[in-house]
Amino acid sequence: MQNCGAEVSIVGIGQVPVTAASPLSLRQLGADAVKRAMADAGVEHVDALFVGNMLADELQGQKHLASLIADQAGLRWAEALQVRAATATGAAALRMAYLAVASGQADVAIALGVEKMSSDRTQVISALAKALDAELEVPGGATLLSQNAKLMRLYLERYGRSISDFDGFALNAHANANGNPNALFHDRVVTQERINAAPIVSAPLRLYDAAPICDGAAAVVLTRTKQARAFHHQPVKMLSASVVTDRFRIADREDPLHLAASTRSAREAFRRANVHRSDIDLFEVHDAFSIMNCLILEAVGFAEPGQGWRLAAEGEIFRDGKLPICTMGGLKARGHPIGASAIYQTCEIVQQLTGTAGQNQLPDPRLGLLQSVGGAGSTVLTHIFGV
Amino acid sequence: MQNCGAEVSIVGIGQVPVTAASPLSLRQLGADAVKRAMADAGVEHVDALFVGNMLADELQGQKHLASLIADQAGLRWAEALQVRAATATGAAALRMAYLAVASGQADVAIALGVEKMSSDRTQVISALAKALDAELEVPGGATLLSQNAKLMRLYLERYGRSISDFDGFALNAHANANGNPNALFHDRVVTQERINAAPIVSAPLRLYDAAPICDGAAAVVLTRTKQARAFHHQPVKMLSASVVTDRFRIADREDPLHLAASTRSAREAFRRANVHRSDIDLFEVHDAFSIMNCLILEAVGFAEPGQGWRLAAEGEIFRDGKLPICTMGGLKARGHPIGASAIYQTCEIVQQLTGTAGQNQLPDPRLGLLQSVGGAGSTVLTHIFGV
Repeated sequence: MQNCGAEVSIVGIGQVPVTAASPLSLRQLGADAVKRAMADAGVEHVDALFVGNMLADELQGQKHLASLIADQAGLRWAEALQVRAATATGAAALRMAYLAVASGQADVAIALGVEKMSSDRTQVISALAKALDAELEVPGGATLLSQNAKLMRLYLERYGRSISDFDGFALNAHANANGNPNALFHDRVVTQERINAAPIVSAPLRLYDAAPICDGAAAVVLTRTKQARAFHHQPVKMLSASVVTDRFRIADREDPLHLAASTRSAREAFRRANVHRSDIDLFEVHDAFSIMNCLILEAVGFAEPGQGWRLAAEGEIFRDGKLPICTMGGLKARGHPIGASAIYQTCEIVQQLTGTAGQNQLPDPRLGLLQSVGGAGSTVLTHIFGV
Repeated sequence: MQNCGAEVSIVGIGQVPVTAASPLSLRQLGADAVKRAMADAGVEHVDALFVGNMLADELQGQKHLASLIADQAGLRWAEALQVRAATATGAAALRMAYLAVASGQADVAIALGVEKMSSDRTQVISALAKALDAELEVPGGATLLSQNAKLMRLYLERYGRSISDFDGFALNAHANANGNPNALFHDRVVTQERINAAPIVSAPLRLYDAAPICDGAAAVVLTRTKQARAFHHQPVKMLSASVVTDRFRIADREDPLHLAASTRSAREAFRRANVHRSDIDLFEVHDAFSIMNCLILEAVGFAEPGQGWRLAAEGEIFRDGKLPICTMGGLKARGHPIGASAIYQTCEIVQQLTGTAGQNQLPDPRLGLLQSVGGAGSTVLTHIFGV
């Protein structure tokens, strides 16, 4: 594969604070994030808008969302298309905006992620389950929650661990959310005692093992690296990306506890960016479930199989640890408005790399890693950012 | 906008014959089209698959479709993402595959369109209506059919025409479908008498003014033009593309009968390809409704406002006319499996430009135009192909 494309940088970010139920409509949420990102980049003209959203078909009865939001944001005449990859949808929007700029088809492109989940909860859960196989998995009662519960059970059994070994993931995420004004749980203090007292949501998963349902929208502005400084004094480079799909159903994979698409996607992204895993300063990980977080750390190679939980238990994932993850709260505590999550994560990496992460600022990070997981691990997108 | 991307060509096509109700499942339809296209291109490895589908969320209860179909087609490890733009969804998949190859991120990319609509008819119509505004249009009973009926009424009134002035669109489409074995109506003979006797479906629209609901899947294989001949002895160049979004609701546009996004998108595509409208040898047009067909011909500039119907009435759109359109049956008679339609049209343009259109073959065409319309004209994608 030759790289005939231009280099791409992020020159603006926009985040609507995540809430349990926003007074804004879906289109307003989306347009709000777009406008914030445009203001940050100082642009008035946008060539292309790529919109990531997973659930509007069911929850708002709305398709054709990219055109609708382009209109709402005042982007008449721009290119506007919607992209999806189940729970990794936000990262798919980022991917498309990257391709549009790298190919020279857009001077300025925006990737927007938006989701409004404050709706009937049963409807949300059943719409989310469509990320799984509608013929072979869902009729048996499978949901994203049940699939992750199954993975957790298997993990605890195979490696002889206890669910409390995973507490560090929630403790880290919630501690970081307290320093992020955009986080859903920015003012909730989650202690070890609170985790101990949490109810089981799907055995063995406890409340703090799963990310919350919420509303949110975030956007980033992309342009060619060569002209990035004309837009923003601190552009962030998109060094590489890699998208990989695995066998769709967990049951069809050699080892359910090995996220092979995560391994391959990360390896390829590291190769393309010419960096090593050990160079990464922060990792915004797809912590929709604590077990998924653990399996990703193992799959990317930050821990041996069966050892991912240790990074949490021993504090290495905290901001003062060797591999800070979920530095602004993660999906767990910033919130997981599905189609928007990876764009929030991108914004947060940009904040860290530009020294604008406020009280959660890491000391001089240079390389940020983002990995997003669709469904039960069949889609994985990896992006690497640098300054 | 600089063009830093590589030039892109189509090196393989695959079409599953359109049917009213396929015995194949959605995923089987999709995988079948992918395999046909790969066989035509002689490729065993694919870097990226972009899937266009509009209705699976409701009709099959399935999201995460790109990963599912990649698995079904044996494309484990490939990049696989879903894209959408309401009724222009197939063209959005083509756009994405183009960006992936032009940017150098994929050596070989496939654009797939797939739709399975043989389901509960009320469910289909209500899912299709989600292409309109769920807050401001649908609650008042608006559907794609009712919006097009409204446009037709307005057109007939403003220009003092009769609905029978539009008969030529259906006559041309059905005559061409008779020569296309992949067409839904390949064996149905539609005469003037039959059109005269057709029932009204939504006044003033008659049965033959609207495209049928059906099942289908089509795929095309893209690679860089520089290496295209290594894949296929008759590659077809993608000369340019342009995507434009207009105000979402017809009510918000200056003139409901002017498809401004169509005008702008075509003008930009002509400019980028450095060709003139009059150079076009065939036009695969978005003839989901005869009024839409007419308005597009006017918007692109092939007819003055109020005169588009004349191209049909006077036979200029027939295969032996000045501007052949819908040369293999169009959405009207090849069938309009929504997310797949623009990919079928792309395949048909490739057939025409490579002299493989069978009994519908035009004499030595060099330039083909494709335009796809999302919703009631708020999204328009134009692609130009050449040999």
